[in-house]
Amino acid sequence: MFRVALFGAGRVGRVHARSIAGHDDARLVRVCDPVPQAAQAVADRYGGRAGTGVDEVLGDPRVDAVVIASPTPTHVDLLSRSVRAGKPVLCEKPIDLDLAAIDRCWADIAHHRPRVMMGFNRRFDPTFHWIRDRVSRGEIGAVRALRITSRDPEPPPPAYIAASGGIFRDMTIHDFDMARYFLGDVTEVHALVSDDGNAELAAEGDAHQAMVLLRGAEGALCTITNSRSCVFGYDQRLEVFGDGGMLEAANQTPSSVRAYSAAAAETAEPYLHFFLERYRESYLAELDEFLRAVGEGRTPAPGFADGRAALALAEAAVESVATGRTVAVARNGSTGATTPSHDAENGALT
Amino acid sequence: MFRVALFGAGRVGRVHARSIAGHDDARLVRVCDPVPQAAQAVADRYGGRAGTGVDEVLGDPRVDAVVIASPTPTHVDLLSRSVRAGKPVLCEKPIDLDLAAIDRCWADIAHHRPRVMMGFNRRFDPTFHWIRDRVSRGEIGAVRALRITSRDPEPPPPAYIAASGGIFRDMTIHDFDMARYFLGDVTEVHALVSDDGNAELAAEGDAHQAMVLLRGAEGALCTITNSRSCVFGYDQRLEVFGDGGMLEAANQTPSSVRAYSAAAAETAEPYLHFFLERYRESYLAELDEFLRAVGEGRTPAPGFADGRAALALAEAAVESVATGRTVAVARNGSTGATTPSHDAENGALT
Amino acid sequence: MFRVALFGAGRVGRVHARSIAGHDDARLVRVCDPVPQAAQAVADRYGGRAGTGVDEVLGDPRVDAVVIASPTPTHVDLLSRSVRAGKPVLCEKPIDLDLAAIDRCWADIAHHRPRVMMGFNRRFDPTFHWIRDRVSRGEIGAVRALRITSRDPEPPPPAYIAASGGIFRDMTIHDFDMARYFLGDVTEVHALVSDDGNAELAAEGDAHQAMVLLRGAEGALCTITNSRSCVFGYDQRLEVFGDGGMLEAANQTPSSVRAYSAAAAETAEPYLHFFLERYRESYLAELDEFLRAVGEGRTPAPGFADGRAALALAEAAVESVATGRTVAVARNGSTGATTPSHDAENGALT
Amino acid sequence: MFRVALFGAGRVGRVHARSIAGHDDARLVRVCDPVPQAAQAVADRYGGRAGTGVDEVLGDPRVDAVVIASPTPTHVDLLSRSVRAGKPVLCEKPIDLDLAAIDRCWADIAHHRPRVMMGFNRRFDPTFHWIRDRVSRGEIGAVRALRITSRDPEPPPPAYIAASGGIFRDMTIHDFDMARYFLGDVTEVHALVSDDGNAELAAEGDAHQAMVLLRGAEGALCTITNSRSCVFGYDQRLEVFGDGGMLEAANQTPSSVRAYSAAAAETAEPYLHFFLERYRESYLAELDEFLRAVGEGRTPAPGFADGRAALALAEAAVESVATGRTVAVARNGSTGATTPSHDAENGALT
Repeated sequence: MFRVALFGAGRVGRVHARSIAGHDDARLVRVCDPVPQAAQAVADRYGGRAGTGVDEVLGDPRVDAVVIASPTPTHVDLLSRSVRAGKPVLCEKPIDLDLAAIDRCWADIAHHRPRVMMGFNRRFDPTFHWIRDRVSRGEIGAVRALRITSRDPEPPPPAYIAASGGIFRDMTIHDFDMARYFLGDVTEVHALVSDDGNAELAAEGDAHQAMVLLRGAEGALCTITNSRSCVFGYDQRLEVFGDGGMLEAANQTPSSVRAYSAAAAETAEPYLHFFLERYRESYLAELDEFLRAVGEGRTPAPGFADGRAALALAEAAVESVATGRTVAVARNGSTGATTPSHDAENGALT
Repeated sequence: MFRVALFGAGRVGRVHARSIAGHDDARLVRVCDPVPQAAQAVADRYGGRAGTGVDEVLGDPRVDAVVIASPTPTHVDLLSRSVRAGKPVLCEKPIDLDLAAIDRCWADIAHHRPRVMMGFNRRFDPTFHWIRDRVSRGEIGAVRALRITSRDPEPPPPAYIAASGGIFRDMTIHDFDMARYFLGDVTEVHALVSDDGNAELAAEGDAHQAMVLLRGAEGALCTITNSRSCVFGYDQRLEVFGDGGMLEAANQTPSSVRAYSAAAAETAEPYLHFFLERYRESYLAELDEFLRAVGEGRTPAPGFADGRAALALAEAAVESVATGRTVAVARNGSTGATTPSHDAENGALT
Repeated sequence: MFRVALFGAGRVGRVHARSIAGHDDARLVRVCDPVPQAAQAVADRYGGRAGTGVDEVLGDPRVDAVVIASPTPTHVDLLSRSVRAGKPVLCEKPIDLDLAAIDRCWADIAHHRPRVMMGFNRRFDPTFHWIRDRVSRGEIGAVRALRITSRDPEPPPPAYIAASGGIFRDMTIHDFDMARYFLGDVTEVHALVSDDGNAELAAEGDAHQAMVLLRGAEGALCTITNSRSCVFGYDQRLEVFGDGGMLEAANQTPSSVRAYSAAAAETAEPYLHFFLERYRESYLAELDEFLRAVGEGRTPAPGFADGRAALALAEAAVESVATGRTVAVARNGSTGATTPSHDAENGALT
Repeated sequence: MFRVALFGAGRVGRVHARSIAGHDDARLVRVCDPVPQAAQAVADRYGGRAGTGVDEVLGDPRVDAVVIASPTPTHVDLLSRSVRAGKPVLCEKPIDLDLAAIDRCWADIAHHRPRVMMGFNRRFDPTFHWIRDRVSRGEIGAVRALRITSRDPEPPPPAYIAASGGIFRDMTIHDFDMARYFLGDVTEVHALVSDDGNAELAAEGDAHQAMVLLRGAEGALCTITNSRSCVFGYDQRLEVFGDGGMLEAANQTPSSVRAYSAAAAETAEPYLHFFLERYRESYLAELDEFLRAVGEGRTPAPGFADGRAALALAEAAVESVATGRTVAVARNGSTGATTPSHDAENGALT
């Protein structure tokens, strides 16, 4: 039985609290949030002791593992302190909005045997995972093209946008990681964006949609299609094309009901609304893999290097938009010696 | 080049006229209808000489083949005279609404080397034909169950109903033939009907929907689902279930367009409206097979015996509704020695 | 928090044990089975005290509700004793294989305020439930036709077959209840069966497939298609056809992955294997409705009368096969005064 | 009845010959090709007089319209001479592989009232046309994103590649035109390519796949995905995404048959093999629109300017690959005053 501490009692924090409470081998023992009432509400529902003190949590020898679901600006600090305290960490993406801060963080923790897993939960979505498994078994031969579609049902509130780091660091980052999940390192990034006439986003200098081209280290090409709005639900598709065929993750309907009328045939309902519905199972599977790695003393994956690499692609996309150029990215998104070596487990499908 | 004469210049007659005019190896040379203007209109559009005289047509040595698309009560007479005149005949279903009349017809023509093809055009629908081909190659192993769905978009006008012989002889007869196409002879028939509150049909003693159970000679079971109305178009489906799998003919949409909105996803358009659209290709393929058989001196299939057998199943269904009993049917729907032997080419998939 | 006792620690008993253990407002407090080790194993996993004594369980005032998942021959006894002990009961189908025994049971318990729910879990399948909800809101107008497809992946073992009461009482009974869920009372039954060459089933006088026609009290017609084998998985479909449209429950794939190769396009995986996978959610929803009814003091639905009515339809199907006749069924499958009146909540969609 | 002359008796020439012969209001009167036997073979099959002399054809006053389906290097010459001879022209794409040659051609013909239609037949595909129609009626609101997928079943022979002008001028040009059909003028182009390890293409400096990003004049973004190989058939899809929904052209299967086995469910057949099958109807509709425009004295569309604009986008893509930059394109792909003004009929959906 793993005793898990949770930092952050907001929306995503609650998702993790529920996963922990529902896991056969885990128990939520600490809920830590600067807002005492928020921590208490989560503890009341999912178990554990509520509090506001980070040191108290990290100093508790009965805490076996830590989940960080607090706001992004707190990630580096909590992650560093957790690693120094010897706790395995599952940290929500992104590590930080600034690559330099990420590299300083790594320099700080590298010698403390960091066991850090990044919360790229989509890698654990059963559908995407199943496709990757089939691809790695050679079902479609050499991978040549990847297409990732990710459209949110509606834009986040302006306050969220202002602190988000922009569409690439906030939203596309999941797709950059998905590209790396299938293609391994990415070597080129090109991006176009549009505000689609959305004044609030334009005021923040942010985009409403993005289309990104990537080239993987093995030569495959990739498109990412993002939009902040989609009236027919949360549009989450993936298509892997190879010499021998194609595997596709279609969207998921809330039920298998099809309707027929004088106006239309074979009508399905709009798709599952958003990530809490669509990726519910992937949060569970992610936690399960984290705890297995903790139990077996493994470094969990995707790891710190994957978190850094996804952000490096986001920065490259920002630069591409600014310059109109395709931006070359070093392998692993590496900028210096402090970067951890790429985790083979998360590498390309070679 | 086959010179073809057409009896009947109504709706179905025009379908055949167009097929003949569009066939690479055929020419429409005669259009015969008791209404001179109707015959002339068809001839003007599709070629041939218009007229009202049957003997004139059948006495013309340049007529290589005859298509009968006139009203049902004229079929036996035209078919008999055509056979006696030595002409190969493609005759629209049914031969007649009365089995005894059919048997008298056969007695009349049996010794004149009848080359008669019945217009069960659905056997030539590329989709159904392709399924039967795959079934006969063993793709799904032994056939155990067949499900036929046939729903018209809307009921025919009352005058048509009154002369139609009822839903089984007029509409289900296509499905009885389709059952025989896949199962060979049918040995048991059970039927339930409902007028669904349609007063016009009830007044004629006719049904608005029918559900029929059949047993094939090899033991397979079959359901037929019929309705005179279907708001989402012409519902034409077929499902063949075997020990090793299933083959299904799905409905056909007018285009491959799918629509997505705030209210619905993956929406297709209502199906192709009616038989002229849905079975356009099958009329062409049927004519083509008829002309090939004529050219090669073969007896075309499906033949007279198939026309009789389908009507025998319709009569059994009528009897089942009247008695509440499953009605046993002799092989070939045979009632006596005058019935032609079953054409092996159209037999069961053994 | 409802304290629930479970009778029966076999396969279906474990399904209920898991549902109870996973329910937010329930706790498994007793597991009773004549085989002590079986009871203990379930209790070890899902909670509660294991035992073999029925009276001890029913005499425990802390038991709020009872779930009966023991073999069919024990249902009447356990159900009667539970009702007499004042416990609300969720009883697996069928009540018994013999209508007379069911009626005696009712005579025995009718005056003890029976709160009995029958385990027709498919009514609680989210897909079927959602369709019925939309039908009842008038989305497709008056219901005219219902088609139910239910094919098991493979036949049960011979020992199971021998005690099952035959395909209609064991397998089709779910479909009879589904027909009643949509159509209300059924007034006519006609059935055809085949052993499909399966020697084991033939030796038991049982069928491998069945096709059944029903007429509902409001005039709608219905087909049920059953098979004991289906190589492509558990084939569970439903189609409700009305004047204004159609609603269909398509089969459910294990994932939304589609594969494309040189041989095929849009290929899905075989369907969810069997009822434990396909109807997992419906068991949860069924238990939830049972406990809600208990909490609110309501008689739960579907109730005892529904259990009796489904068996009456099975008996009618047996008779139809034996006689070749359509069998008329009284409303509610009633055979006498002791039958409970029909529960309006479960009635036809009028 | 339009009397049509055809230049070019190769593969695409035969497609046009068949369309002309099958058109109710057209007759093929001349087939002109430098290879006499080729011209004769087409004339024998589809009608008309065969010959090798261009002037003889263009000097014939009975020729009402000209179709140019000869090799690309002959287009400018034949098109110019046809316009000077006063003949309306339907010319296969591209006008030429060199923009300067196209502009010289226009300078040459601009004052001779050119009635030139470019053979971008996909605009006349019923599915794409139907989507554009619905988009223009506002069904999905403002268009924000377009995704075009076009994968050929297999690469053309090396000799074809060598003369093709490269993937953008030969293959993507159809997709550039499709982008313009939906978005109007395109203002930015960015492209990535890969040879996917294909040595023959690499030897020619050509690509095996391409991914292109475009920005439309109204701000919408677009991706084009091309591959020279696709094992599951000719992959032709289109997706238009707007504020109010999405319209999608799915791939088209050869039949509506779906297969089910122990290994797979809902399996369709590989898609229609290549353009002759997939776009058969669009060639007919294209010819029909051309002849209607001729009959009504209209300048047909898409016109010369559209042909130039698509090639300008191809050149921009070539430049983008060479420089790694997004290439800005002037409206209409205009480079100078001699370019015809954009035909409003083919403009953006504003």
